Amino acid sequence: MRIYSPVGFSRVSLEGPFWRERLDTVLARTVPSQHRQLERHGILHSLTIPQPVPPLTIPRNHHNFTMQIFWDSDVGKWIEAASYALSHRRDGIIEAQIDEITELLAKAQLPDGYLNCWYIGREPENRWTNLRDNHELYCAGHMLEGAIAYFEATGRRRLLDIMQRYVDHIDAMFGPREDQKQGYCGHQEIEIALLKLYRVTKNRRYLDLAAYFIDERGKNPHYFDAEAIARGDDPKKFWAKTYQYNQSHMPVRQQDKVVGHAVRAMYMYTAMAELAVELDDASLRRACEVLWRDVTGRRIYLTGGLGPAATNEGFTEDYDLPNDTAYAETCASVALIFWAQRMLHLDLDGKYADILELALFNNALCGLSRDGQHYFYENPLESDGRHSRWEWHVCPCCTMNASRLIASVGGYFCSESKDAVALHLYGGISTTVEVAGRKVKIKEESNYPWSGAVRISVDPDSPGEFALKLRIPGWAKRATASVNGVAVELAAVRNGYLDIRRVWGKGDTVVLDLPMAPERVYAHPLVRMDVGRVALRRGPLVYCLEEADNPGHRMQQLRLPRASDLRSVTRTDLFDGVVTIVANGKALATADWEDELYRNESPRESTVSLTALPYYLWSNRTKGSMTVWIAEE
Amino acid sequence: MRIYSPVGFSRVSLEGPFWRERLDTVLARTVPSQHRQLERHGILHSLTIPQPVPPLTIPRNHHNFTMQIFWDSDVGKWIEAASYALSHRRDGIIEAQIDEITELLAKAQLPDGYLNCWYIGREPENRWTNLRDNHELYCAGHMLEGAIAYFEATGRRRLLDIMQRYVDHIDAMFGPREDQKQGYCGHQEIEIALLKLYRVTKNRRYLDLAAYFIDERGKNPHYFDAEAIARGDDPKKFWAKTYQYNQSHMPVRQQDKVVGHAVRAMYMYTAMAELAVELDDASLRRACEVLWRDVTGRRIYLTGGLGPAATNEGFTEDYDLPNDTAYAETCASVALIFWAQRMLHLDLDGKYADILELALFNNALCGLSRDGQHYFYENPLESDGRHSRWEWHVCPCCTMNASRLIASVGGYFCSESKDAVALHLYGGISTTVEVAGRKVKIKEESNYPWSGAVRISVDPDSPGEFALKLRIPGWAKRATASVNGVAVELAAVRNGYLDIRRVWGKGDTVVLDLPMAPERVYAHPLVRMDVGRVALRRGPLVYCLEEADNPGHRMQQLRLPRASDLRSVTRTDLFDGVVTIVANGKALATADWEDELYRNESPRESTVSLTALPYYLWSNRTKGSMTVWIAEE
Repeated sequence: MRIYSPVGFSRVSLEGPFWRERLDTVLARTVPSQHRQLERHGILHSLTIPQPVPPLTIPRNHHNFTMQIFWDSDVGKWIEAASYALSHRRDGIIEAQIDEITELLAKAQLPDGYLNCWYIGREPENRWTNLRDNHELYCAGHMLEGAIAYFEATGRRRLLDIMQRYVDHIDAMFGPREDQKQGYCGHQEIEIALLKLYRVTKNRRYLDLAAYFIDERGKNPHYFDAEAIARGDDPKKFWAKTYQYNQSHMPVRQQDKVVGHAVRAMYMYTAMAELAVELDDASLRRACEVLWRDVTGRRIYLTGGLGPAATNEGFTEDYDLPNDTAYAETCASVALIFWAQRMLHLDLDGKYADILELALFNNALCGLSRDGQHYFYENPLESDGRHSRWEWHVCPCCTMNASRLIASVGGYFCSESKDAVALHLYGGISTTVEVAGRKVKIKEESNYPWSGAVRISVDPDSPGEFALKLRIPGWAKRATASVNGVAVELAAVRNGYLDIRRVWGKGDTVVLDLPMAPERVYAHPLVRMDVGRVALRRGPLVYCLEEADNPGHRMQQLRLPRASDLRSVTRTDLFDGVVTIVANGKALATADWEDELYRNESPRESTVSLTALPYYLWSNRTKGSMTVWIAEE
Repeated sequence: MRIYSPVGFSRVSLEGPFWRERLDTVLARTVPSQHRQLERHGILHSLTIPQPVPPLTIPRNHHNFTMQIFWDSDVGKWIEAASYALSHRRDGIIEAQIDEITELLAKAQLPDGYLNCWYIGREPENRWTNLRDNHELYCAGHMLEGAIAYFEATGRRRLLDIMQRYVDHIDAMFGPREDQKQGYCGHQEIEIALLKLYRVTKNRRYLDLAAYFIDERGKNPHYFDAEAIARGDDPKKFWAKTYQYNQSHMPVRQQDKVVGHAVRAMYMYTAMAELAVELDDASLRRACEVLWRDVTGRRIYLTGGLGPAATNEGFTEDYDLPNDTAYAETCASVALIFWAQRMLHLDLDGKYADILELALFNNALCGLSRDGQHYFYENPLESDGRHSRWEWHVCPCCTMNASRLIASVGGYFCSESKDAVALHLYGGISTTVEVAGRKVKIKEESNYPWSGAVRISVDPDSPGEFALKLRIPGWAKRATASVNGVAVELAAVRNGYLDIRRVWGKGDTVVLDLPMAPERVYAHPLVRMDVGRVALRRGPLVYCLEEADNPGHRMQQLRLPRASDLRSVTRTDLFDGVVTIVANGKALATADWEDELYRNESPRESTVSLTALPYYLWSNRTKGSMTVWIAEE
């Protein structure tokens, strides 16, 4: 049963400097440049049916897999991001670009509604024969999300109509009847899209189809076995070796370990949590809670990154969190934010918002450069200087996940219920919510995440009683709050939210102070890579040592004594103003080593000043080494 | 110009307990079990020509490469190891097995002398068309080494004759003439074998051919380019992307960085160093010295392991020495021992013997289990418990490198020259050398590597003046020596050798004391993985913490305070007696963490006793975590 609903980003005006800069960059630079990249790399061109002869072909990888097969999804994600941009400000050029794509899709769509440009253009006879590997439903899901976003931004429904016809085709194709396929996608995603379509159309069929895909997953006999045999393949030769890879190794309600490909996992849990809300499904909710505990207690990086291994783009063992080889794909953190938001609506608990904020401000934001046109796919927590941002990627999934997240970030700030409004994030927003039968203007002002001083004006169109629930972040120690100058007892914080229930009237003001002292963080001793190391955090931001701020050293040579004070230093000369953390440290000297590689004397040390930068900002200047976890002594 | 020659293993009797146990294990268990494995995996069967229909086929990897292509080399290496075993004690069964293989090869050999069972059996039309990838000369080299060893052990020359015919075919095929190929093998090895054949036959042609292969390498236009074009391939599509992979990126004399596939590099440097001796080639010698300084100063693990990366089975960047993902292939360390021995004959300098000893007692010995029938291919310096020994490997190169090394280890102990005998290693041997026109019996008694107390009896058949050069290891501090009870001035140590020149007569005795205190070792600060960590060493042995000796902890949770005393503790209950290193340490507690993964308080510590075991012995008991580099506090 749904108690809270998110306040959509189109109702939230971002006014604080931090998010304003990110949003402006995405609107002005990222979205237009991504269209150019889609064009340059032939991705838009691939929507033309019939395909040119010879067709544009990118090389297959060593599993005989071509990433071209999910190009539809990249286009769909760009439409989604671009449409979110349009919600902020309309743009004739972008709209013409989306309309042009729409016409290509209209032309490509088969009479029965089927619409996947790879299959239609290359191997129409093979559609729906390899759900395990070929991302067919995944592509449909992303294009559907794009269509919904464009409809919501502009009111134009031609693309939505096209995609709804395709979804109706899919709905006829999959289901429990004997003439239907009892299948589901190897890469979860369509479930999230179907739930959005349900929200827009209120048509229950789409909710049911999302639930069907989730419920069917992992049943025996296994669909991917049967499907492989049907196309003449040996199911045992599945390259990933285990159905854990796509979380179909058992029915979802029995799953209690976060395994396999990280993005697939997070998309699935997102859909599961939303279905648990919509259907008031206790067993689905319980599974989500168990999986949440598993990932946050044993399998997440300090930066909100997920998945240590490149081989499966995903999870390995408990506490296996290598720093320099961390995969920690941008997409996975974006998807974790989706999941966390759904969990928050299942149960308004700050533990979900804490992770949402962590993933947002660190791993996810790190995925997009300061200039809005360079990206990280992997987000390691340590680099010897070889890792840096790229302009585009053979698998561009992360690029549009970054842009669609930032273009809609306002949607993660507030939720509303019948008699309460909850603020999860801070950073300068205004919105109008419906609560207790009233329209209530909320204005939140702050210089978050640089400062925890937050001022909230509450302005109902008439006085009335309701609850204002303010998240007190898990990292915030000694927080204080006052309403109209009168202190509020912080003991009232329950599950991470300060619950202020009263009769609110025009001009009421809440002041919240979340002191942001730089602090040390230590990892569980079973995280073997981090033993003897310390990380720095201030508010929601995780920090790192980067060579650009500490020239003349490899960052791994620097050590931070346990007794050193940590100081916040505002630097207006860096990135339009950031707060750095400065401390006295030690640098291991290399000069006296000459050609020696090992010796009996420990390295000599010199005293240095260490400057730590928010992690999400690294690799925006010169190439160099970086570390989040610093040797402590 | 050759001054020193090694005293061959067949002239050296191993009498000390350490090497006696290893040698007995290899003779009694390893060599016979390797024959069974070669049989079980179809490797011996593949020598039968014509091949059965359908032929035995193992899967190709994602570069479309089958390891089956170098099965001839595995057979050759087994013959070599088995023949070394026969030199210690004749064995009718083994000899019958080698004779059987000989007959298969005789039958397979083509009229022109060509003899590669893969090509003859599968694609005779393609021979000599892909030297870059297909190990054709490499296979010839290993089989030739096997043939020479069998001839030397038994006097039977049928296999040697077969191989010599093949080498004569190769000699006709490759060379500077227009009707010859100006090629060389992608995997260096045959050069070493040809130099052995030169030693046995004294036929200068084989020396010249080895020199030709070395000199031709890396010339432009590049042979592997031309060869690829000739067979219709695009040279740019070389899977390894760079000819650094096989050290043909430039002429060998210009090479000053140790790059690419580690085993190929080491085999090549071995041949280069031996050619430099034989030909008195100053430029080749200089290249060897530069490469030696590069590898030992920046690119070698503390254990003597080489090559951090699995992708190229080789080298990456300076100081890039990750512990848990270290490749450090057993073969590479074995080959480093070959190279170090050749360097020692180029210049009797203890720095070469130090590395020889290091690689031997640590990385190389680690490759073979205590029971003689399990192996390591990779030798990481840290494991979370997932790495353990295997019974066999799809690429069994390391297995026979371990057995052929140990079965001939006596050959690394001494060298002789006209007027000197040098001892490089200790461990209980006796031998008779020719020096100063006399036969001199040398008996070295010790419990090395557990104790550094060494007693050497010198017994010439008549008194005479010559030098006894005793290696004083780089690790040995405060060494003392005496001759017939009279102390020798250790200031006389030059380049790592104590040079005792005198008139030696019957009953002369040298006593050497190399005190073995456990000691701490630190890595160069640019080895980022080892910052804040310490390793333990005693004598030639590097130690590790293994879970079997420190139960209840992951080894990465353990810390060694800088102030803790290190104690040598002899344990007769472990592996027939070993010396462990024991120290007071700290264990990071996990009990108070519950579901937390990160927190502000540093982990609590409890005091524990740490027991470190020689690295080469790890993974011979239960599975568990291990680390060489220990967090220091």
